[in-house]
Formats: sequence, structure tokens, C-alpha cells
Amino acid sequence: MTNHPLRIIPLGGLGEVGKNMMIVEWRDHIVVIDAGVMFPQNDMWGIDLVIPDFEYLLGKQDRVEGIIITHGHEDHTGGLPYLLREIQAPVFATRLTLGLIEVKLREYGMLSRAQLHRIDAGGALSLGPFKFEFFATNHSIPDGVGLAIDTPQGLVVHSGDFKIDYTPVDGRPADLGKLAELGNRGVLVLLADSTNSESPGFTPSERVIDQAFDQVFKEAPGRIIVTTFASLISRIQQVMNTAQRHNRKVAITGRSMEENIRIAQELGYLTIPRGLLVPLSEIERLHPRQVAIMATGSQGEPSAALARMARGQHYQIEIVPGDTVIISAHAVPGNEEFVHDIINRLFQCGADVVYEKIAPVHVSGHASQEEQKLLISLVRPRYFVPIHGELRHLKLHAWLAQQIGIPPERTLVVENGYVLEFDEAGGCIGERIPGRYVFVDGAGVGDVGPAVMRDREILGQDGVVIAVAKVDTRSHGLHERPEIHSRGFVYIRESEDLLEGAREEIERVLQRSEPAETRKAAESRVRKALQRYFYQEIQRRPMIFPIIVEV
Amino acid sequence: MTNHPLRIIPLGGLGEVGKNMMIVEWRDHIVVIDAGVMFPQNDMWGIDLVIPDFEYLLGKQDRVEGIIITHGHEDHTGGLPYLLREIQAPVFATRLTLGLIEVKLREYGMLSRAQLHRIDAGGALSLGPFKFEFFATNHSIPDGVGLAIDTPQGLVVHSGDFKIDYTPVDGRPADLGKLAELGNRGVLVLLADSTNSESPGFTPSERVIDQAFDQVFKEAPGRIIVTTFASLISRIQQVMNTAQRHNRKVAITGRSMEENIRIAQELGYLTIPRGLLVPLSEIERLHPRQVAIMATGSQGEPSAALARMARGQHYQIEIVPGDTVIISAHAVPGNEEFVHDIINRLFQCGADVVYEKIAPVHVSGHASQEEQKLLISLVRPRYFVPIHGELRHLKLHAWLAQQIGIPPERTLVVENGYVLEFDEAGGCIGERIPGRYVFVDGAGVGDVGPAVMRDREILGQDGVVIAVAKVDTRSHGLHERPEIHSRGFVYIRESEDLLEGAREEIERVLQRSEPAETRKAAESRVRKALQRYFYQEIQRRPMIFPIIVEV
Repeated sequence: MTNHPLRIIPLGGLGEVGKNMMIVEWRDHIVVIDAGVMFPQNDMWGIDLVIPDFEYLLGKQDRVEGIIITHGHEDHTGGLPYLLREIQAPVFATRLTLGLIEVKLREYGMLSRAQLHRIDAGGALSLGPFKFEFFATNHSIPDGVGLAIDTPQGLVVHSGDFKIDYTPVDGRPADLGKLAELGNRGVLVLLADSTNSESPGFTPSERVIDQAFDQVFKEAPGRIIVTTFASLISRIQQVMNTAQRHNRKVAITGRSMEENIRIAQELGYLTIPRGLLVPLSEIERLHPRQVAIMATGSQGEPSAALARMARGQHYQIEIVPGDTVIISAHAVPGNEEFVHDIINRLFQCGADVVYEKIAPVHVSGHASQEEQKLLISLVRPRYFVPIHGELRHLKLHAWLAQQIGIPPERTLVVENGYVLEFDEAGGCIGERIPGRYVFVDGAGVGDVGPAVMRDREILGQDGVVIAVAKVDTRSHGLHERPEIHSRGFVYIRESEDLLEGAREEIERVLQRSEPAETRKAAESRVRKALQRYFYQEIQRRPMIFPIIVEV
Repeated sequence: MTNHPLRIIPLGGLGEVGKNMMIVEWRDHIVVIDAGVMFPQNDMWGIDLVIPDFEYLLGKQDRVEGIIITHGHEDHTGGLPYLLREIQAPVFATRLTLGLIEVKLREYGMLSRAQLHRIDAGGALSLGPFKFEFFATNHSIPDGVGLAIDTPQGLVVHSGDFKIDYTPVDGRPADLGKLAELGNRGVLVLLADSTNSESPGFTPSERVIDQAFDQVFKEAPGRIIVTTFASLISRIQQVMNTAQRHNRKVAITGRSMEENIRIAQELGYLTIPRGLLVPLSEIERLHPRQVAIMATGSQGEPSAALARMARGQHYQIEIVPGDTVIISAHAVPGNEEFVHDIINRLFQCGADVVYEKIAPVHVSGHASQEEQKLLISLVRPRYFVPIHGELRHLKLHAWLAQQIGIPPERTLVVENGYVLEFDEAGGCIGERIPGRYVFVDGAGVGDVGPAVMRDREILGQDGVVIAVAKVDTRSHGLHERPEIHSRGFVYIRESEDLLEGAREEIERVLQRSEPAETRKAAESRVRKALQRYFYQEIQRRPMIFPIIVEV
């Protein structure tokens, strides 16, 4: 024991707590767990990615012993290129995860500078005062691990993204024995995945999908097109196996799917029988009942293969009656409208569409309530910290923990930025450190803030009106009639009267200008007059941009 | 029988079929069923409402015998003010529905001109060659009706929005006897609500909510705040009854809730015990355990009462630990993020939040699969037409109908705009009539089309850059340094280098200008140069607006 507290800090803003990045710190030793991105919400106008604020780590380069990545999903790896620009530290991950990280860092031109090290489930690693042990978990990508961290204040267990699958497709079940052993050793604090804490029961095994696939593959009268997450390698394996059983060849469309299949195959995470894969260009020569196609676009992404097919814009595949499309995925919140639109369009093209609501062609990658209880019961921690979820998920998960005996005062629910401190007196929630989420837009990191976002909202809702008036510097009179330009405001050709009225409004306003008035003041008067005019006439509030040019 | 076909046409664009408006037509007689609005989807930038295209009805004023509104929800009534501007025709609706329509027409200043007529469940009405009978259905607003239409080609049954509740809170169960009687008379075609065709089983009775409410009201340590749809009068009744049982007074916040309660009370659809209601300003004087508050905002609407409370911006109510919030509603697709955000913020304020996922505090207003099968089994129609749903719901509903014996060739699945024709030869799907959805934005109806929307998307994603350059008309040289203005593009104060580079780019481009070049051509060169420059520098594509002023 020591009187230096152990500090655990989930980083980021409002959003899933500890999902994208966590800090474990003791004295001047820091380990970073995960470095992911959040996908922008609907009110984040024009934002491409959201990364945690690294502010806390800046200037502490020497203290960072390492970065541990629990699995290969974007929300755990996507922030690495941004983090490694600020902090040089070795990165540790399992084999498949490393393979995916290499692809990402190569894209950003950063692979040669990165120090990547392989870890394995069942293995261990010492970083400064911390001893890590890694244990296998099940999730919707292979090779995920949870962490046991022996610290000077006690044993910390971090579940990673997890579920419990007794019969996983990749034959690598969650390591329940290790979890029980950790529990027997005595665990100070368990940090556990709360994503599905609203779901009662057990998440079904990935195996159940085999039966659903078999039935569809047996009954489909023509081609079968399957979409799933490109990283869900075990699902891709299931499609390959099912196709093989039903004598269908498999073609792939979509860059991320092709790339992940290549990596997974190289690293031995995917076994494809020889002769099963055919190039997309060759499927025309096969009978439709001999064809299965794997496509990207399970989230309705507009530029992915499935969306292109649904809109009749795919370069190779046209959906025809007799085709069957399997959507082997769940729409991530915010993507439902896109996915539903694609399902409707596929039906419109005459395809049959099989999706979650119709047949069990997808299961979640996260633990449901009974698995969450099982984890807590095996680990029996002194403190319980729900992570990986929004506040509502964490609250529910904390209630579950309390139901099975963790006292309320030892279930610590925090938001990103709060410091959890553990010392000889126990655990408590400390101060909140500054920093939130940082927006990435194009090549810009953190330069888009609330003001820019608010302007984008106005522009996106009602467009922009630009009014140009030439004013004589001596007489202060208008030189010629003002010009009105607009975009995203009204259909210009049918709005001549409205725009003529606006020109008259400007003329009226500028007639009253005083000699001493600055250009800025005159522009402000024009802006206000046009705002009033347009709201009165058409009840819209475009962004008004007056430009007075003195000639 | 007659050789003039009966025509049934759902109007609108891509979206729920026949939800907002349907046409029933025989020779030169037309009846309109419902006149609703669709709420804009995420990709409809800046649109307030979406209404069906009335084009088909224009010029046919004399043929429209009437407009029948099945119930008082916006998606069935909200288009009336727009329709009545184009078509003068009598409107028929039940008592509560009429009350709600009156409020709406008064808002639009159209009440005095409208001809409103009351109908009743169990009643009948002749319009031209059509004989209507109205039957009670259950739905998430009282006083909904389904329609039986005796036409020259046979009997048409239209379910309206429906579910079957054997123990409804308002004591008015769906009229199963009438449905069976219609089935015994022989029905040509059944048009039935498909909204929940993805949901197995039976939708539970509204009664189950009483138990959930009772438990929360019993255990809540402080104030209770309940939000639900303002039109869900029976739910409001349940809250009132539960509050009365648990000795809590009820205060109301939110304009639509106050207004609907007033109307429902006036018309006798809501019974509030004397002394139960208190003004919001008086709850401070009561013990928190004596207080229940009904609030608007169940869909997370940012300006509604609940969102204001969650953000700490309500003029009267501050959420404090000990408060319990019940969200007695289901988030309509597209609103999930808003609702989740509010739940998280309420937890953040220290409230307990009880929502659908935690306790049965809401049930759907639409029939699930077993009720859908029951309806078809009672009515036993010759033709089955699934309506009220997206294409995927209709396809599923059609499969259900086929499972219980309607042959595939007599299940007609159509999209909005397709004409269903029934004559002595049978039923078939005819041509598609022109017309789709029409966007309402502020006071503008139909003036925002794809071009304006595309511009809004660009503006909302990456903002706008306005470049102003004064050019000498004689020398064709730049008069002074160009100005760059931007909104929603970058944080200007930290982007001086970027914008300085843009000024230099403009100078470089305009140096090469030729004497004969038009202003438009020069502006186009500036636009292209800046587009290239900004994409290269920062990978963004703002809308570029060059203005060259000749002085």
C-alpha cells in the first residue's frame, strides 16, 4: 500500500464514458487505454470525426509508459493518428488489432514513426509500476481483450467491449476462468461495458445466425447479397461457410470489406476455402443461385456499395426481382433513417430484404444484463465503475450492480473528465479536469467550435443572402442598384418579386445614411432591415451578409 | 355493378403510404381521406413540414364531395389549412378531432371559411355515390374512426390508425362486431394500418400503464414529472387518476399540453377531479411528494418544457435530486438522439428517469402482427392493401395477409401516387400519377426544391466564403487588397494565415485577367482557385462566393 492515489480518468465530452480513451495514472506514470473516435451526432454540423481532448496528456510525454488498444474498432483505434502526433509512446495491441492499426497509420503516413508491439490474450506486460494481464473477451470483432492491471493500490479489471459467447464462431470464448481467478485474488475496481444495460437477458451466441443464414441461402430463388460490418470477421466467416455449404461462390464489393478480408486472411483470422471467392466481374457467368455477394454499407452509408445498389448506381450490380438482401447488422443510433431508406429502396427494386426485425440475422456484440451480472459476480470487485455507455446506460448498470450486492457508495458513476481516485481511504470521485471532445473537420483539428457550428446551422436551415451595395464616398449615395445574391434560401427564378423588394429595402435604408456613419454601422442597418423584411415576407431567417463597397 | 372503375390513390412521395392523404374516386366523384403532414427527415435541410402534392385535385374542385379526417393527429390533420386554400369542400370528423381542427384552422386564420361537420362512430354519411359508415378504433388519441365505404364497385374498409384494446382507458373498445358484420356482408378491399407490422404479438392494453405509474408514484421520493404526447388524452387521464390516488396535485407546463387538456375537458374527453389541478406557480408551496407535473417534450423537442428543464432553462422548474421523470412515449424515428440526450441530462441533474426501456410506461398506438391478422380475419376482404407504413412495413403486412389466406395476386402493395383500380374484372395497380411531397419552409410552400436543398447541405457542412475584390475598370488591376469574409467555415481569429493565403490566391488569379474578360468569367476563375486552395490547405469545400466590383 502507498499513500499515492491511483487515478483513473475517462477522457472526452458528453457521450459514451471512457469509450474512446481512458487514463490510468499513479505518481508520474501514465498508461493510456484506447484511442478512438466518436462519430458525429446530428447536431455536429459538417464534422467528420470527434476525438477526445488530449490536453491532459500534453507536456506529460515522458510519463506516458504506453498506449494499450483493447480491440480494432474505430471507436478504440481511430484517434491514434491524432494522439501519436502529440505523444510519442509505444502502442500495444493483439495481432489482428495491430494489423488494422497498421493500415490506419499507413493512411496517415505515420506507420514508420510508430512503435507497435504485440500482446496476446493470456499474456502479461509490465509498464512502469503497472503489471497488465490480458484476457480473451467476445465482441463483434475477433481478438478483443480485457485488462487486469496490478497497481500499487490494488487490482483493476477493465472489461473492454465484451459479451460472453459460450459457442463463438472463432472458437475463442471469453476467459471466464481468468475472471474468476482475478475475483479470487481480490479486485479493487471493475470497469465494465454498459452498452447493452437496457437489454434484459443474455445476448444470443453468434451461432444462432448460422441457422438463419442457412434458411435464407436454401430458399432464396436468386442471388444473395449480404452486408455486415467490415470488421465483423466472424460474421464474414459465417457467410463464407454458408455459401460453401449451399454451393454459392462469393464476390466482394466495397473497399473496407475487401481490405479487412485481406488482412484477416493474411493473419489467419479468416479461412476461405480455395475457389470460393470469385471476382465481381465473373458473377454474370454464374447462375443467380450460385452467387453470394458481400457488400459494405450495413449502416446505410450513402457512398457504400449497398446504398449504390439500392439507388441503381452501383458500377456492376443491378438489383433485380429474385435477389435477396441480408442486412446482418444493427443500425447504430442516428443511422436508422439511412438504413430504412435503403431497405425501402431495395424492396422497390423488387428484392426480398431480410433484416433483424424479420429473422435473427444479427446479434449484438455487447453483453446484456445477465452477462453483466455474471461478470460482476465473477470479479466481485470492491468498487464498480460502469463505463462504455451514455449516462443512462451507466445509471442502469450501476443499479444492476447494486442489485447483486455492490453497495451504492461503492458504485461510482462518472462522466468523461472526472478523476476517480483510489487510495488507502477508499475510492472517490475527484475533480473534473478541463477538456472535452475535439472536432475534426477535413484537415482541421479543433478549429471548429460552437460559433462556427451555430453559423452552419443557420446556413443549413435557411441559406445565405449576400447584398452588395456600391456607395459613393463623397455623396454617400448609392452608386447603382444594389445586387442580391442568395444560396439555399429560395428558388431564385420564382422569387424575383421578393428579391426586388429586398433591393428596395436596401435603397430605403441607405438613403438615410449619415455622412459620419462607418461602413460597419451601415452594413449592420442593412442586415437588420433585410432580416425583418425576409421574416415578414416569407418567415425565413437566412444569414444576411451585407457588403457595402465605397467607390 | 358498373364498368366504371373505383379508383383509390394514396398521395405523397417516398414515405408512409396513404398516411397523410388518400383519394377515393368513382366517375367524377372524389372523397379525400385525411389531410396530414409528414415531419421532415434529416436530409430535408431547413424544412418545417412536408405536405402531399395536391396537384391531382387542382381543377377538380367541383368533384370533391368531402374531406374525411379519421383522427386528430398532425399526420392526418396538419395539411388541412394548405388543402383548403386550394379546394373548398366540407370537412367531416368526430367531435374531438373537429375540436383540434378548429384550433389549427384558427391559427391559420381560416376557421370562418371552413365548413366543418361532425360525424360519429356508429354513424353513417352519404357523399355522392359513396355511403360511409364509421366504426370505433383504438389509437393513441381518443375518438378515432375507421371507415366502411359502400361504393358502386363494392365495400371498401379503411382501418384508419388502429389497434385493438379490449380494456381501453376511455372505455371505447374497437368495434369488432362492426368489423365482423362488414366481413359477413362481403368486403371488396381492406386498407389496413401497417405501422407495427414488424412487431410480433399483441400491443398491450393502455391499462398496463396504470400499474407502472402506480409503482413510480408510490416510490418516488420527491416530485414526479411526466411527459407524453399532448394528444394522448387517455394517457393524460391516467396521470390525473394516478396523481389523485396518490394524493398529488397536478400542474401543467407546455402550450400544446395546456391547450389539448382544455379542449378535451370542454368536450368531455377528460375528467379531472375538482381541486386536482394547480397552477405551476403554486407547486413551490407543496411538499415535493404532493406534486406531479405534466410537461410537453416527449420527443425531445428542443424548445419544449422537458428539454428546457433538462438544460436548466425552464422559467419555473429546476430539476433537483429526488425528482423522478417519466417519459411516457416512444421516440419517433429520427428523434432518438434528442430524447437520449435529454434522458442523459436529466440523470446529470440528479433526477431518476423512468422510460420505456426501464418500465412499461408506454404502449404503442398501433396494432401488432396478431391484431393485424385478427382484423384481416374478421373482414375477410377479397383484396388486401397494406397502408400507413414505409414500403418495408407494407411488404411484411402483405406477407402476413398471405399467411392467413389472401392470395399474393390479391395483396396489392403500392407506393404513394399509384392508382388502385377496381372494376368487374377485379383489382389492379394502375399508372402512377405525377406529384410527390411538397416542402413547407416558413411561409413558402413548394418553393424549396432539390437545388436549394443541395446548397443548404453544402452551407451546413462547410459554410460559406465571400471574397470581395475591387477591380479598376480601366487598368483591370486590383484596386486594393481583396476582402475575405466567412461564416461556418473556420474560426476566423485563428485562421489568419489561411485567409491571407486566400487573399494572395485571388491577387494571383486576377493579375492574369484579360481586358475583355467578363466579370462572370473572372468570378468563376476566383471561385475555382479558392476551391482548390481551401481543399488543399484544410480539406474543406465551403461554398465560395466571389464578388468582383468594378470601380
